[in-house]
Amino acid sequence: MILIEKIEILPRIKLGCLPTPIESLQNFGKKFGCNNIYIKRDDLTGIGPGGNKVRSLEFILGEAVSNNCDTIIVAGPLQSNLCTLAASACAKTGLKCITVHNGVKPDRAEGNLLLNNLLNVESHYLGNISSKERNKYADELKVSLKAKGLSPYVIENGATTGMGAMGYVSAVIEMEKQVQELDIPLKSIYAPGGNGGVAAGLIYGNALLGFPFDINIISVEYDKNALISEIEKVFDQLNEILHIPFNYKTEEICNIIDDYRGEDWGVNTIESERMVHAFPQMEGIFIENIYNSKVLAGMEDLAKQSKLPEGACYLHTGGFGSLFSQY
Amino acid sequence: MILIEKIEILPRIKLGCLPTPIESLQNFGKKFGCNNIYIKRDDLTGIGPGGNKVRSLEFILGEAVSNNCDTIIVAGPLQSNLCTLAASACAKTGLKCITVHNGVKPDRAEGNLLLNNLLNVESHYLGNISSKERNKYADELKVSLKAKGLSPYVIENGATTGMGAMGYVSAVIEMEKQVQELDIPLKSIYAPGGNGGVAAGLIYGNALLGFPFDINIISVEYDKNALISEIEKVFDQLNEILHIPFNYKTEEICNIIDDYRGEDWGVNTIESERMVHAFPQMEGIFIENIYNSKVLAGMEDLAKQSKLPEGACYLHTGGFGSLFSQY
Repeated sequence: MILIEKIEILPRIKLGCLPTPIESLQNFGKKFGCNNIYIKRDDLTGIGPGGNKVRSLEFILGEAVSNNCDTIIVAGPLQSNLCTLAASACAKTGLKCITVHNGVKPDRAEGNLLLNNLLNVESHYLGNISSKERNKYADELKVSLKAKGLSPYVIENGATTGMGAMGYVSAVIEMEKQVQELDIPLKSIYAPGGNGGVAAGLIYGNALLGFPFDINIISVEYDKNALISEIEKVFDQLNEILHIPFNYKTEEICNIIDDYRGEDWGVNTIESERMVHAFPQMEGIFIENIYNSKVLAGMEDLAKQSKLPEGACYLHTGGFGSLFSQY
Repeated sequence: MILIEKIEILPRIKLGCLPTPIESLQNFGKKFGCNNIYIKRDDLTGIGPGGNKVRSLEFILGEAVSNNCDTIIVAGPLQSNLCTLAASACAKTGLKCITVHNGVKPDRAEGNLLLNNLLNVESHYLGNISSKERNKYADELKVSLKAKGLSPYVIENGATTGMGAMGYVSAVIEMEKQVQELDIPLKSIYAPGGNGGVAAGLIYGNALLGFPFDINIISVEYDKNALISEIEKVFDQLNEILHIPFNYKTEEICNIIDDYRGEDWGVNTIESERMVHAFPQMEGIFIENIYNSKVLAGMEDLAKQSKLPEGACYLHTGGFGSLFSQY
């Protein structure tokens, strides 16, 4: 299989406990009258507090190490899962990690910031600036570290790059194999769309595998057109990495849903706020309040409208560390 | 195999994502000049915040359900992992859960208490009383709920009972199979000894399987004789459940180490406090500060004395939720 061979020759560092489990969501399914509802436990990837970005970091840090980089610069908001996961992965890999945050250093470190402190990561708090200014700072930091003789690598765009998305190209392969081995009727995947990294990887991998799943992306940030535009930028980068013909129109090969994002990234809807409580009370599994809750609130609404198909699987992208700062 | 058959007929509810992964602790091993050091990821059992008690709860809730109980009463300190895991498992199982705490309800719920709130569990805060008085309250609560027509079940002694210890009898079977499949030279297990539930299950299961592993229990609470006495109480309960001849002297079939417990349960040693930072900085995996850290500090000290054998495996018993209240 050409895709698997192409992936095998990419630089990659084993970080995650893969494959992550697929389980049945019996109570959620029963409550809404849906059969065979599943959860893919990417919250259990096993590095740091766990989460989806561990898959991306396998390829991103693989590239960094193969380029002889010694220092990883990663930027995000204070409670960024990516930052904490990158710091955890760097600890294991023996790389220095610097986190760069738009936000004021709080008096007491909670959630992911507590974890960053335990990791003894070097953190730069830039105050209340935009994420664009923050990313500019990260790039400038790279230049200054280079001048000091270090070999820095910046994780661009919240790991939403071709290399980062390779994590979810691989995840589709993992899930197809798992579904066959478990012999379960898992037919569609529901995942969050933030700036499009997970989405792009899933859609691209699914297409190259001949569409074993229906991919449904529930936006938690952008409207449909903006999210598609972000996803398509990543497709271009994936094309450059894999050199496998890929000529699909995004909307023809997946379902982009922007009905559940509410006002903005990180701003609850009534339904997502309710779901942060309702989901653990149904299934004994915790979710956080930015990415997880809106996807599940969307699945719930679709189920109530009898539009959630049999064999739907929720992709739990993790973020457990940040939950402890959200309440 | 008589043991496996006897376990299969016990009432049991599937809760955990089992088997949990076994991984190599490459950096820890390298740092201390030890080969083939492993970690068993029972922090990734997948219910609630994860941890060892999920294995115990499979049998305990199994017994409760088979006795037609509808309400689980569980007692522990404020940050009890057992309480949060029991509440999570009850949510999934459809049982009502009441947690009973010796401690004052804090103004702000942190760590496991935050998770309990998300689960909407009924919690009784009894103020600063002894754990003995707390357990008496739990028993009295059972009587009063019974009078109201409910069918309550009290999880006794922090799940350190014969049924609770069945979780780790089963875990030894799981590990033996896994070690064969992975074809790794994992020869000994290092686990915490609190009030002896994990220890008793591991030692008992290992003996009945013909000693595939050397079992090392690092006490985090009692001195050696007191811990052995607790463990042997559980052996008697396991004998009553399994009816398999078991006539060993505890000290002849395992290694009980009480050199690393410091002053008391929950009181750091210099080395355990250091390890809460050092371990994630080596391996990218977080540990908490009561059970996990003292075991790893013990393994570190043994390694420095060249007394940690090749093929040692650290059993990560979880407790990630409580970490967020410890700093």
